[in-house]
Amino acid sequence: MKIKNICYAQSGGPTAVINESARAVIETAKAYPTHFGKVYAGLNGISGVLHEELIDTYAEPIENIEALSYTPGAAFGSCRYKLKDVATHREEYLRLLDVFDAHNIGYFLYNGGGDSQDTAYKIAHISQTLGYSLQCIGIPKTIDNDLPFTDCSPGFASAGKYLATSIREAGLDLYSMASSSTRVFVMETMGRHTGWLAAASGIAQDTQNPEPHIILFPEIPFVPEKFLAKVDDCVKHHGLCTISVSEGILDVHGKHLLEKTEVDAFGHEQLGGVACVIAGFIKQGLGLKNHWAVPDYFQRASRHIVSQVDLEHAYAVGKAAVDFLVSGKNSVMPIIIRENSSPYRWRIEDANLAHIANQEKFLPRDYIDAEGFHITDKCREYLLPLIQGEDIPVFHQGLPNYVRLQRKLVPKKLNPFVR
Amino acid sequence: MKIKNICYAQSGGPTAVINESARAVIETAKAYPTHFGKVYAGLNGISGVLHEELIDTYAEPIENIEALSYTPGAAFGSCRYKLKDVATHREEYLRLLDVFDAHNIGYFLYNGGGDSQDTAYKIAHISQTLGYSLQCIGIPKTIDNDLPFTDCSPGFASAGKYLATSIREAGLDLYSMASSSTRVFVMETMGRHTGWLAAASGIAQDTQNPEPHIILFPEIPFVPEKFLAKVDDCVKHHGLCTISVSEGILDVHGKHLLEKTEVDAFGHEQLGGVACVIAGFIKQGLGLKNHWAVPDYFQRASRHIVSQVDLEHAYAVGKAAVDFLVSGKNSVMPIIIRENSSPYRWRIEDANLAHIANQEKFLPRDYIDAEGFHITDKCREYLLPLIQGEDIPVFHQGLPNYVRLQRKLVPKKLNPFVR
Repeated sequence: MKIKNICYAQSGGPTAVINESARAVIETAKAYPTHFGKVYAGLNGISGVLHEELIDTYAEPIENIEALSYTPGAAFGSCRYKLKDVATHREEYLRLLDVFDAHNIGYFLYNGGGDSQDTAYKIAHISQTLGYSLQCIGIPKTIDNDLPFTDCSPGFASAGKYLATSIREAGLDLYSMASSSTRVFVMETMGRHTGWLAAASGIAQDTQNPEPHIILFPEIPFVPEKFLAKVDDCVKHHGLCTISVSEGILDVHGKHLLEKTEVDAFGHEQLGGVACVIAGFIKQGLGLKNHWAVPDYFQRASRHIVSQVDLEHAYAVGKAAVDFLVSGKNSVMPIIIRENSSPYRWRIEDANLAHIANQEKFLPRDYIDAEGFHITDKCREYLLPLIQGEDIPVFHQGLPNYVRLQRKLVPKKLNPFVR
Repeated sequence: MKIKNICYAQSGGPTAVINESARAVIETAKAYPTHFGKVYAGLNGISGVLHEELIDTYAEPIENIEALSYTPGAAFGSCRYKLKDVATHREEYLRLLDVFDAHNIGYFLYNGGGDSQDTAYKIAHISQTLGYSLQCIGIPKTIDNDLPFTDCSPGFASAGKYLATSIREAGLDLYSMASSSTRVFVMETMGRHTGWLAAASGIAQDTQNPEPHIILFPEIPFVPEKFLAKVDDCVKHHGLCTISVSEGILDVHGKHLLEKTEVDAFGHEQLGGVACVIAGFIKQGLGLKNHWAVPDYFQRASRHIVSQVDLEHAYAVGKAAVDFLVSGKNSVMPIIIRENSSPYRWRIEDANLAHIANQEKFLPRDYIDAEGFHITDKCREYLLPLIQGEDIPVFHQGLPNYVRLQRKLVPKKLNPFVR
């Protein structure tokens, strides 16, 4: 068979471990020198592929590729760009295939969340329709943990570990001060539609540590009176209250608590700042002094407090994607199958991209307690294995020594892309 | 001489390393069994001393005392309670001396910031006036780094290391997304009146990493037009902009950018949320999509990303306080004297509490560049040695295994304190 190149691209919001999947792709591809040529990476995701901006990952010093293992962000650049319908925007798909053809690319790996898997599926479909020989594999990645079929999505567990660590630390701070000063602490988590990240912060609660006392999930409608009664009760019993709130919580009418400010390129609303709204409710309704935190990007970029299991998952799905190419698979995504929770055992299988695209996996109702303010033991059993293990990045001069790639571009062969 | 007990208390906002000073006090006192009886700790700071709530630290399991080394928060409880003037509130001081007398306390160690050193000074003064035999030593602690005389204050460097790490990580995230989505990231730092913490985040900028691009200090009046022009220029040149903003920034009239919401028990305004205001300026003035983060308590509680040098300082000032007692000193505070920056050498001396009380050390003007938007090399030289070294806490089940003390109280001997 003719040796062809791989095109790899990163998509959507980065995670602390997405670059570990990239490293796995590059290292695994190199292990098949008779099968693959080079691994090209789209500069800033699919957008770079459209504009024929392809990074030659093999030109990158080997120590930079190794450093991907402990570098957050999306090292090749990512984007929020969703390919439109094939019917109305056929020229975008044809352009992609032109770029693939010009650079002898026979394999496309797209590392992202639900929207990205949709894009990967569309590209796989049209290439088959047009008879262009392309194997297309999605690689799962999202801190939101909302991809279906896979037991979890790489990136989620590290964000969860960060949030659980942070609420535990802030809880100890609050515990120090609550007798005379601040009584309530509110932490906002990401999670546009699903409560996975808010739930993950709940794992910090154990026999010795009560934080968080309350969790607000998007899956449970927010009723101010019920919430304030719960906070009041908590402060009366424990002298203080720590709260994790998902940015995506909705009122009983299904509306976001925050005014809608902006819409991203995928058509999603940009949220953020609901912790401040919740803090205002508490101040106004109960007169309690409070503090609030919005970690925002920190929760998905905090490579310094990564989960080792998450890192292993990220490598495994990257490696599996290349292995799938070798075994001739197409239009699938590697998924993580849990065999056992304790001791934790898992394996990789594959799922059809046609079934994955644009589906969201919500937090199951039995992962949330009856009252709707915390996680259940079943949820704990799910979360606990995922956040295990630490992997400290290399430090230099007191700070993590993350890599910035050289990103050398392959010479262009086509005319510029004009829509 | 008669063996007397030590009373130790923690005051004001916790830091990631204040408990290391507590451990040093307890361990050092135990090394002088013929000099000291027990170390009692005020439950929730001076407030617990007033109410005769004294924790017997020697009743605490030894492994708990060792775990103080890697536990954030103020393990014995802290408070925001400033003793009033001796002239008008003499009964509070007399009560303290009654409690000391009832529990055979001859030594008082107060671990806190500027307000706490003021309290320590007042107690030292009145005990001398009244002829009560008491040695009184302040132990420096503040993430704000605004205590005079000492080269730095324990707690500051770890908060700085957290902020610098966080802005570097968020910067990599932004760098991934800026081509198609978010262009500006704003991080809010604490620092009520001084720019030390905002400055510390600036150490993340080096030859390889541009973050933060802009720093807003309380020492430099905020001029929206000048700031927006700077952001605009940064985005035009680099495609993105990362900003650290101190919660305490002031406009040209010396007013806080945020409405004043609350006043704490020390009479300080409670700030927080200015990152959101700055993000609003940018959105409105330049139309740039942005994200913002408010780490709030995380920056002072993030023991998992502590500075080892800071930890060493915290131990050293706690140990020195007890050594000062042995050598007969009174009404002083251990201070850190820098002998050399590179290689870093330092020693402990003492400063008179009378000169420390209620003084704030501002960021020197020559630590801020001419334009007022970043730190100078002189500031870097100051900061760099302070954030060196890591000390990873003990993890259990995937999360830091911080200790909660048993806090066994000594039986009371006096009537309740009623003001």
